[in-house]
Amino acid sequence: MAGNTIGKLFTVTTFGESHGPGLGCIVDGCPPGIPLDEGMLQQDLDRRKPGTSRYTTQRREPDAVRILSGVFDGVTTGTPIGLLIENTDQRSKDYSEIKDRFRPAHADYGYWHKYGIRDYRGGGRSSARETAMRVAAGAIARQFLLAQGITVRGYLSQMGPIKAETFDWNEVDRNPFFCPDAVKAAEMADYINSLRKEGNSIGARITVTATGLMPGLGEPVFDRLDADLAHALMSINAVKGVEIGAGFGCVEQKGTEHRDEMTPEGFLSNHAGGILGGITTGQDIVAHIALKPTSSLLVPGRSIDVEGNPVEVVTKGRHDPCVGVRATPIAEAMMSIVLMDHLLRHRAQNSDVSVSTPVIAGAVS
Amino acid sequence: MAGNTIGKLFTVTTFGESHGPGLGCIVDGCPPGIPLDEGMLQQDLDRRKPGTSRYTTQRREPDAVRILSGVFDGVTTGTPIGLLIENTDQRSKDYSEIKDRFRPAHADYGYWHKYGIRDYRGGGRSSARETAMRVAAGAIARQFLLAQGITVRGYLSQMGPIKAETFDWNEVDRNPFFCPDAVKAAEMADYINSLRKEGNSIGARITVTATGLMPGLGEPVFDRLDADLAHALMSINAVKGVEIGAGFGCVEQKGTEHRDEMTPEGFLSNHAGGILGGITTGQDIVAHIALKPTSSLLVPGRSIDVEGNPVEVVTKGRHDPCVGVRATPIAEAMMSIVLMDHLLRHRAQNSDVSVSTPVIAGAVS
Amino acid sequence: MAGNTIGKLFTVTTFGESHGPGLGCIVDGCPPGIPLDEGMLQQDLDRRKPGTSRYTTQRREPDAVRILSGVFDGVTTGTPIGLLIENTDQRSKDYSEIKDRFRPAHADYGYWHKYGIRDYRGGGRSSARETAMRVAAGAIARQFLLAQGITVRGYLSQMGPIKAETFDWNEVDRNPFFCPDAVKAAEMADYINSLRKEGNSIGARITVTATGLMPGLGEPVFDRLDADLAHALMSINAVKGVEIGAGFGCVEQKGTEHRDEMTPEGFLSNHAGGILGGITTGQDIVAHIALKPTSSLLVPGRSIDVEGNPVEVVTKGRHDPCVGVRATPIAEAMMSIVLMDHLLRHRAQNSDVSVSTPVIAGAVS
Amino acid sequence: MAGNTIGKLFTVTTFGESHGPGLGCIVDGCPPGIPLDEGMLQQDLDRRKPGTSRYTTQRREPDAVRILSGVFDGVTTGTPIGLLIENTDQRSKDYSEIKDRFRPAHADYGYWHKYGIRDYRGGGRSSARETAMRVAAGAIARQFLLAQGITVRGYLSQMGPIKAETFDWNEVDRNPFFCPDAVKAAEMADYINSLRKEGNSIGARITVTATGLMPGLGEPVFDRLDADLAHALMSINAVKGVEIGAGFGCVEQKGTEHRDEMTPEGFLSNHAGGILGGITTGQDIVAHIALKPTSSLLVPGRSIDVEGNPVEVVTKGRHDPCVGVRATPIAEAMMSIVLMDHLLRHRAQNSDVSVSTPVIAGAVS
Repeated sequence: MAGNTIGKLFTVTTFGESHGPGLGCIVDGCPPGIPLDEGMLQQDLDRRKPGTSRYTTQRREPDAVRILSGVFDGVTTGTPIGLLIENTDQRSKDYSEIKDRFRPAHADYGYWHKYGIRDYRGGGRSSARETAMRVAAGAIARQFLLAQGITVRGYLSQMGPIKAETFDWNEVDRNPFFCPDAVKAAEMADYINSLRKEGNSIGARITVTATGLMPGLGEPVFDRLDADLAHALMSINAVKGVEIGAGFGCVEQKGTEHRDEMTPEGFLSNHAGGILGGITTGQDIVAHIALKPTSSLLVPGRSIDVEGNPVEVVTKGRHDPCVGVRATPIAEAMMSIVLMDHLLRHRAQNSDVSVSTPVIAGAVS
Repeated sequence: MAGNTIGKLFTVTTFGESHGPGLGCIVDGCPPGIPLDEGMLQQDLDRRKPGTSRYTTQRREPDAVRILSGVFDGVTTGTPIGLLIENTDQRSKDYSEIKDRFRPAHADYGYWHKYGIRDYRGGGRSSARETAMRVAAGAIARQFLLAQGITVRGYLSQMGPIKAETFDWNEVDRNPFFCPDAVKAAEMADYINSLRKEGNSIGARITVTATGLMPGLGEPVFDRLDADLAHALMSINAVKGVEIGAGFGCVEQKGTEHRDEMTPEGFLSNHAGGILGGITTGQDIVAHIALKPTSSLLVPGRSIDVEGNPVEVVTKGRHDPCVGVRATPIAEAMMSIVLMDHLLRHRAQNSDVSVSTPVIAGAVS
Repeated sequence: MAGNTIGKLFTVTTFGESHGPGLGCIVDGCPPGIPLDEGMLQQDLDRRKPGTSRYTTQRREPDAVRILSGVFDGVTTGTPIGLLIENTDQRSKDYSEIKDRFRPAHADYGYWHKYGIRDYRGGGRSSARETAMRVAAGAIARQFLLAQGITVRGYLSQMGPIKAETFDWNEVDRNPFFCPDAVKAAEMADYINSLRKEGNSIGARITVTATGLMPGLGEPVFDRLDADLAHALMSINAVKGVEIGAGFGCVEQKGTEHRDEMTPEGFLSNHAGGILGGITTGQDIVAHIALKPTSSLLVPGRSIDVEGNPVEVVTKGRHDPCVGVRATPIAEAMMSIVLMDHLLRHRAQNSDVSVSTPVIAGAVS
Repeated sequence: MAGNTIGKLFTVTTFGESHGPGLGCIVDGCPPGIPLDEGMLQQDLDRRKPGTSRYTTQRREPDAVRILSGVFDGVTTGTPIGLLIENTDQRSKDYSEIKDRFRPAHADYGYWHKYGIRDYRGGGRSSARETAMRVAAGAIARQFLLAQGITVRGYLSQMGPIKAETFDWNEVDRNPFFCPDAVKAAEMADYINSLRKEGNSIGARITVTATGLMPGLGEPVFDRLDADLAHALMSINAVKGVEIGAGFGCVEQKGTEHRDEMTPEGFLSNHAGGILGGITTGQDIVAHIALKPTSSLLVPGRSIDVEGNPVEVVTKGRHDPCVGVRATPIAEAMMSIVLMDHLLRHRAQNSDVSVSTPVIAGAVS
């Protein structure tokens, strides 16, 4: 495969370039009888949509999604769900001047050597535009997960030097950064403005969580739940790192500190991030991702052209100073897709052996 | 699938419990004509083998691997390669006393809820023993990569508070920790001894690199090379985090700092870790993983038994105070498997369009 | 997976119901640089299109296909190719009266028990309409195969009692039945008319061939080329049997009669149909399929309704008296998809060992 | 993949050459808690074992299978099941003289061009020996199916000109041909002897059935149950044709004759062979396969050697005059594997929508 499909039982296959006729995907493996309509998908799509605030690119993307199949009388039928978003606002001219030169830290150079062909208009498949379909497919998974009592939520835990210090889920949707800390959100707004002035960008850290899971979900070896989450989250544009639970913090932890002790009343901590040996413990799943600063800058950068000559590159276009600002819904979507896939796999392989052991509570972490 | 296969074209499927009759795997998709014999596999297996130094578990595992198929007259035939290691030293009695209780931070509890059945002998599939087959399969991939001029190497960059500060590839194989810094390696030896005395354990950080890659290897969307590496590396026992290049460091980097500028003479830095948009740039691939401290401790821990009653658990067994000590060859194996898989995929999809653009050098990082 | 994808490296995933907004598919794994435009696809689509002659359903399906991605400046880019056909002529009322009753020999009853939900409008996914996307995807594969000197062609070898006796490739496209025998084609025309009068239908036999293949294409065990062809051809609506070469004729053949002897000048016969042990011999691939008579009849049939009560069913709609009439392009498409998939797999696994043995000619069969 | 794996959720991956150290497979995806021991597997293996009667090759294959993992305390654990049969009786010398020449109608020539390397000892992967592992894996599926009330059984319906005319399941296991007709079985014995005298071979037709299935099993498009069965059955050595139900008989059937009418008391016929639109109807599944005559003959045949020179080939070895004689257990195994795979897929995708429609009885066919 050329790698445009994710999932084993709940599969999402996407197509589309940022400046072609449109973006689409096929969601296969969704069980029948799940309530679904375009409004449910649009709700999630609008959360990642650019142009919604002064702090993201002003490019207009109506992102109006159409359900082309797999839904009848308001519920899924069990057949593949075809989704389509037609592209509208495509200012190809923005890109004409970088037609023959590689942008530093962009996928251009690698694409050129891989394909020998270049759709220079907005990076083609490497454009963040591609993630719209991930969010639409993720919204379907969220509907399924909600029916199982599972909630997937994320937030921006850090933007450059600014870390969220207080935590309020309600605040997350009140600011354009998905930041759980109102005070820091205000600082972020100022910071973004200063970055835009200097034509620069910044990295970010996002945290995604899942609550309501039972223990015993996942696989022990290659398709561990944490390994599949790492794959799905690292596949998001600009992500350079993935952590589960304590993540890199455990490098300096001793076993006595790291291990999550268990009592009949529940776990005493959650350094594991809800997954041990690739399988859920029933605690919340906690994952963190690192997003690099966007490489489309107004500050000139040294590069080469297709002939290998030295050139200077300035990316005019319309870009986010911090791609992390819009990435929270995408991270939620990817985690939702992976969890639904594993829930379907679990159904298939579920044991006929009943276990009397009580499920204990997760740590209040 | 139950998740015991990795790879799309170069596939590795493993089986075996730490205390069953043996461990094995089937390596499918290896092209014909590649020199291979048991000695080549044994060499890599011996690098991860326990009992080789005072600093790892004293459990004896001869780990003698047999090639059961796919090799004829000293070269691969293109048919599936069956590998088998029969288990010899299995002290099941060591585990009898934790038969009915869950070890804190072990996979026990999740396994129990997933399967309803428990092979309590050494954790079954969750045992580090399972990784022997990854190393054997990885050794086959290494043979293939070497023929393409690609070298995969790793080292222990940190153990608990001790970080490698000087760097010497030659030193890596001179100490039992795969540490590139001789002075720090000596400190690690003392540290391990003190940990064993207190019956505790510690986490570690390992770095894996690949050199000799051409630009253009990988896929743009879900099966990005970095996403597949994240999946493969996170699937290693005890790994809780994966970074590519700057990793979480890029959260606080500005775009002007992070971007790897290009000149006709080569890249000026390698914060991307050799991968942009899921595709290689031709620079070295650099990945880091975080390994948690082993949870098998002599220090008593609070837990529950299968009836949900509170119990105290002490893991006598024979365990590594730092699983990171033996994990370097495993990380190398996983990266090798992923790279070979993508090289075969690249062969299948390679373009008939020729590119005149010269390949530029990687940064001396 | 829910089974809407075919292929391992060249993958085709389809969606769409006969009476929903549209049909689409994603073709993934197509190498870059292959000339492609909508006209090329339309040409093949028009060959299977109903309403083109008096002998097929008069339902109008413009089948205008749009390429939504993966093509730039007239050639494939190596990224997924999204295809869409919007539905236009959907007379759902035709189906209203069979809303609550199962049509004998239709997929209705099984679908009902599988999904618990029923899109009674024209059978949803079980409609022959779904095959339009197979033809479009197959047309892409044909472009690739042609560049390799491989030609896939089929014909109607039998309709009910009428067998083609003379053979002329030129004649195949001159009559609406894809029959290579002009005289028999005329008989078929009369036969179809008489069937329509009596409101009945008839089965058919189609032969598909591939020329220009090299020896050595395919796999030895489960993914044999003939096994993959059997899967692809049996997946076509109404197909109940698949033969390779002599097929069921070999049941009564002796080894001395069946074996295709070889000489330096070439094979002396082709009972194997071009495939031995799952791998091509370089002879023409010859496959035959049996298509059942359509079950949508004007002659009343006994059946039950969703409550299990006895009912009489008459299918008014607009249906082909012989589905085989339009199936030749579909069979060609499926064989093309399988061959392209195996050619890409061959590229990936190709040997570095060169063989001096000359390729001998195929039998003039 | 190199095609040595079959199944999506219940996967079987095999390795091994007829004259290497051994044969093995990994069965992944088997749910936990299913009773299993080596005796259960051996029982099925012994049914296909050569050397059990005068009518098959006298080659001795103890075929003693070992379970290396995935079973604990007599039941499956849900982890991969590793199986191994070590080769014992390997008379490689038998093959030395055909080392450099291609046997007509063997896979030799295609293998040579595919791999460029040749394990001439008994055909390597193309040897019928490979099917032992299919039978072992199939035996695991049979255990699972039996627990669901599903029985898979097959018989030899025709050997060359001799067709079974009477039918008695009890007779099937009483003769070495799996023939349901005692009188014809006796004729077959004489026929085999005469063939052996003349050093020739003959084709055969085998029928496989499954009873006890519910309606609604399968998928609508590419992974239709009949398509997957066609793939699995065509992947058996020497199979050249596959039919479901009426098969090629439906070419001359009218719709009124072919359609299986339904009444509250049940179906009135079973021309569909239990599958409509790729999904079960609840009737018995009925499939037929055509097996070609073995190509290893004592009657000299014309061929070429690796240099392309004309040679005469006589295959001394020890071979079955009719490979169909031993193929019934293999066909049963393949059908069992496909059904178990689809049952697990069904579990994963099962609807939450309940259907009140009663399941009607199958036709007494």
